[in-house]
Amino acid sequence: MEPKPVVETTFRVRYAETDASGIVYHANYLVWFEVARGEFFWQQGRDYHRDVELRGFYWPVTEASVRYLVSARYGELVTVRAWVEEVQSRSLKIAYEVVNAESRQTLCSGWTKHLNVDQQGRVRTIPAEIRAFLV
Amino acid sequence: MEPKPVVETTFRVRYAETDASGIVYHANYLVWFEVARGEFFWQQGRDYHRDVELRGFYWPVTEASVRYLVSARYGELVTVRAWVEEVQSRSLKIAYEVVNAESRQTLCSGWTKHLNVDQQGRVRTIPAEIRAFLV
Amino acid sequence: MEPKPVVETTFRVRYAETDASGIVYHANYLVWFEVARGEFFWQQGRDYHRDVELRGFYWPVTEASVRYLVSARYGELVTVRAWVEEVQSRSLKIAYEVVNAESRQTLCSGWTKHLNVDQQGRVRTIPAEIRAFLV
Amino acid sequence: MEPKPVVETTFRVRYAETDASGIVYHANYLVWFEVARGEFFWQQGRDYHRDVELRGFYWPVTEASVRYLVSARYGELVTVRAWVEEVQSRSLKIAYEVVNAESRQTLCSGWTKHLNVDQQGRVRTIPAEIRAFLV
Repeated sequence: MEPKPVVETTFRVRYAETDASGIVYHANYLVWFEVARGEFFWQQGRDYHRDVELRGFYWPVTEASVRYLVSARYGELVTVRAWVEEVQSRSLKIAYEVVNAESRQTLCSGWTKHLNVDQQGRVRTIPAEIRAFLV
Repeated sequence: MEPKPVVETTFRVRYAETDASGIVYHANYLVWFEVARGEFFWQQGRDYHRDVELRGFYWPVTEASVRYLVSARYGELVTVRAWVEEVQSRSLKIAYEVVNAESRQTLCSGWTKHLNVDQQGRVRTIPAEIRAFLV
Repeated sequence: MEPKPVVETTFRVRYAETDASGIVYHANYLVWFEVARGEFFWQQGRDYHRDVELRGFYWPVTEASVRYLVSARYGELVTVRAWVEEVQSRSLKIAYEVVNAESRQTLCSGWTKHLNVDQQGRVRTIPAEIRAFLV
Repeated sequence: MEPKPVVETTFRVRYAETDASGIVYHANYLVWFEVARGEFFWQQGRDYHRDVELRGFYWPVTEASVRYLVSARYGELVTVRAWVEEVQSRSLKIAYEVVNAESRQTLCSGWTKHLNVDQQGRVRTIPAEIRAFLV
């Protein structure tokens, strides 16, 4: 089986993302993870809202883990890398790495687990047509 | 006509709300305005979601104005004061003042204008039963 | 050894904290954890900024873990419970639980690990006077 | 006098930026304005932090005005346009327009006023070398 594709997205740290200690506020890395998760769709010509939500599903985060290694600062160009780590019948796990876009130094790593639920919040099997663009 | 009631809500500045210059990031005052707008409902035993949205209406912000006088800092107790400034048939204007909860020094003032729209985004007359708790 | 005190703080979910799926955006639970971490100080008459930062230390988050059980929604009264789980010479771990303030149903749990660093980012031993209000 | 250059920056709406009404939360437009303000520096090979803050100055927002015309949604490509509207000896005003990147439909417009203050918060004349890249 071939290695899973890694999606990358690069942007500058916003002033709004920093805090009074002068570095990026830690919760914002989860936001960046989500930006990269979205990119996983866009870079395949897909759209999480259109291809998952409008088919009647949501992927709420059920668990998240983040390791902070080096602080990011205002204006820094960061690259967030994301890849599908595991797909089960009704859930998936996506892994992330945030690196400085120039030095490629790792700033942060982590993962999120998601359940596939319907609009009533019931856990459902991921339909084959959605599964097809995950693995 | 009697003066309009002013609703007050008091909370501490969160670390997440500060930025690298050491003070509260300016966009967060709009969030605080919205907290006070919500309080206008809660303190009357009402709920914006139940009493406006579930009746089929939304009040998107159509215009906002903010004047920043004194910076707020982490941990500071701030009081946000809100009052209905103007109600028209299909729109309303709410005014706000943020003060230091102890000294009562004014930190920020502003207002937001809202349109009453239905779920299709069409501008609609504010129903009498909603209007009743605004004026 | 007596059980560690649990600090509680209660507030309403802000509209700003929700997302397009209608529930609280997952990264905001880390913000709530930090609000509770701050309360740990306030409720002892202390202040993280004054008692840690102004003594020359910062407690950056080095690791975070969150388990999401039940979604919170706009206007819901939530209580965040926090307690010191572990204090080592140069680091600490704080645990959290978010519950619905009325039903006490658990919505989310998690923990954060922090290093004690100085203004140059070097890892340092937690001074005895700071340690004293942690354990 | 030639027209002032307009800086443009384009990005996708993040899920984190939406709220329970399904559209972008209104305070986030101020964040986007700031992203465009930063771009004004980056696109000239400058850096607000290095070229303003490290010279001892801050540009706190003293007033902001926003007009919301059309709601932005998750995943939408938006372009934020920014230009210096006015520079006085100790203050400046920057104007913004948010448009859909494809249709160029205007979604939002606004402006922010800033004072040039030193690290003690005193209002100071904008130094000639900083003024030089504003006008």
